[in-house]
Amino acid sequence: MPSRMRHEIEEIPAAAARLLEREKASVAAAAAAIRKTDPPFLVSVARGSSDHACTYLKYASELLLGLPMASVGPSVASVYGARLRVRGAAGLSVSQSGASPDIVEMTKALRAGGGLTLVLTNHPASPLAAEAEHVIDIAAGAETSVAATKTFVNSALAGLWLLAEVKGDAALLAAIEALPEAFGQATETDWSAVGAALTPGSLYTLGRGPAWAISTEAALKFKEVCQLHGEGFSSAEVLHGPVSMVERGFPVLAFAAADAAEPTVAEVADAIAAKGATVFATSGLVNRATPLPTVRTGHWLTDPLALIVSFYAMIERIAVARGLDPDEPRHLSKVTQTT
Amino acid sequence: MPSRMRHEIEEIPAAAARLLEREKASVAAAAAAIRKTDPPFLVSVARGSSDHACTYLKYASELLLGLPMASVGPSVASVYGARLRVRGAAGLSVSQSGASPDIVEMTKALRAGGGLTLVLTNHPASPLAAEAEHVIDIAAGAETSVAATKTFVNSALAGLWLLAEVKGDAALLAAIEALPEAFGQATETDWSAVGAALTPGSLYTLGRGPAWAISTEAALKFKEVCQLHGEGFSSAEVLHGPVSMVERGFPVLAFAAADAAEPTVAEVADAIAAKGATVFATSGLVNRATPLPTVRTGHWLTDPLALIVSFYAMIERIAVARGLDPDEPRHLSKVTQTT
Repeated sequence: MPSRMRHEIEEIPAAAARLLEREKASVAAAAAAIRKTDPPFLVSVARGSSDHACTYLKYASELLLGLPMASVGPSVASVYGARLRVRGAAGLSVSQSGASPDIVEMTKALRAGGGLTLVLTNHPASPLAAEAEHVIDIAAGAETSVAATKTFVNSALAGLWLLAEVKGDAALLAAIEALPEAFGQATETDWSAVGAALTPGSLYTLGRGPAWAISTEAALKFKEVCQLHGEGFSSAEVLHGPVSMVERGFPVLAFAAADAAEPTVAEVADAIAAKGATVFATSGLVNRATPLPTVRTGHWLTDPLALIVSFYAMIERIAVARGLDPDEPRHLSKVTQTT
Repeated sequence: MPSRMRHEIEEIPAAAARLLEREKASVAAAAAAIRKTDPPFLVSVARGSSDHACTYLKYASELLLGLPMASVGPSVASVYGARLRVRGAAGLSVSQSGASPDIVEMTKALRAGGGLTLVLTNHPASPLAAEAEHVIDIAAGAETSVAATKTFVNSALAGLWLLAEVKGDAALLAAIEALPEAFGQATETDWSAVGAALTPGSLYTLGRGPAWAISTEAALKFKEVCQLHGEGFSSAEVLHGPVSMVERGFPVLAFAAADAAEPTVAEVADAIAAKGATVFATSGLVNRATPLPTVRTGHWLTDPLALIVSFYAMIERIAVARGLDPDEPRHLSKVTQTT
């Protein structure tokens, strides 16, 4: 019997289509509020996979709008009780459950400090949603496997859509509309060569810019559902120390979108392959590394979302092949409440 | 013969004293510029160990001044050519060498965008320093082992000093003045139990707030000089997925300062020990985990700096015991130039 995780990965195209169909009004209202506020910067509040979605949205905000986004640790409010100066800024809190007390606390603090508060959640009746001025329901439908898949994709997609609306970027909005179909193709790409190359211990995931954010989500999934120690690095950052661990056969998975960073990601992928690592890359520009089949989406900012769908389709199979239950990873529960 | 890294770790107290003695004028001038600008937020630009110093300074800025700090990927300027909206904001670029083209490029872009630019570097005649309005020489002296130790400490200390001056925080300034002596004690703490507990593969370093930043620097050192896969997590974040990898004997090193987060860090350290992990913590509040000797510094914000000095004193010994040359880690060079 297929896992619930497999079922939820296969639902990604329909979940994305549902979000795009249902949330036009809430996205338009939130975008209008951001335009009206004209914030000097954004603040994100999230943990786990949702925080990786925020890292992706940070690049989107900075590259599309030139608007810096600061990721703020929830502990700043919940543990240290500090008052952030956020008057006139906009806060984006992302949580599929909307239930973690520290995320709720930080969002409350942003609102109390005079920030515009926006929430992306799969549970619009959650305590988190109750604290925000604008709530976008990511409309992913029930997700019961512990590891986030369709809620990650829909969180990132909802945030990207919001930023595209703020800018009024017609080309990006068109690519977003076409994503459900691209996601359908991405669930069918064959990345089985990666699973065959994995060794028992560690591996690195790489990327740059928006695709680096995606690589950190991939690294978390390796830990969560495969008990393999994946860690995600920018393809520049990896050369500032972490590459020292690379030896013959060390597995590396490099994520590249069809963007300005693709040549540099391919170059680093090849350089690490030359040190003996077994390197895969979602780019045809590599020479030594092994290229993986990719679904391109017609826009460099939506490409990374199709990459993570291909990755999810692969990682569930690796977990099953390792005899692990992808739906119920060891030591974890679906809703993690941290304070 | 002791390694150069050992020599440089032992120099930390003198290097810190030199910084505090020599840079009063540059720190005062930079602090005055920040007060005058009254920026709505800060932007940091760095890689590797310097980026970990920035994460520490991000918490310091947010907790001391309520001023959010956004860590901006250098690729935003150097690869994607985006123009960040930073008029009126302040940028802090940190690089011991001051030579990496992507850090220089991003700093240039911040200045061109109307941001106040500040640089912390060990090479005040570097290309990076030439781009900034305010340069603080971290005055660490020549560092020839590849892994940063005294330059990390002095970068973090210089930035903390700057923020303390901006606030005019007498208690923190007094604790900073006393740090060279505390660092001397910290080089002599005995953390050898950690080395004895390490297994060949992976480990986690934990912390929360400023001590979490320090834990990420520790994780990098495990990779760089010991070829062990350390990864640093917030003690809240680790429960959102990464804990799934923890099995019997999995090594965990939890960093806690004497601050508001100490009880929660100790609680998570004990909870992970209860899952069978071998957990060490720099806190006397633990029950199942093993407490490590710590040097407290009289202020919760300076405590993490003494912790990393104790850690450095330990990690060099672990590298040597593993038959590795701590001065010349595999695949690395002292100045990493990324674009």
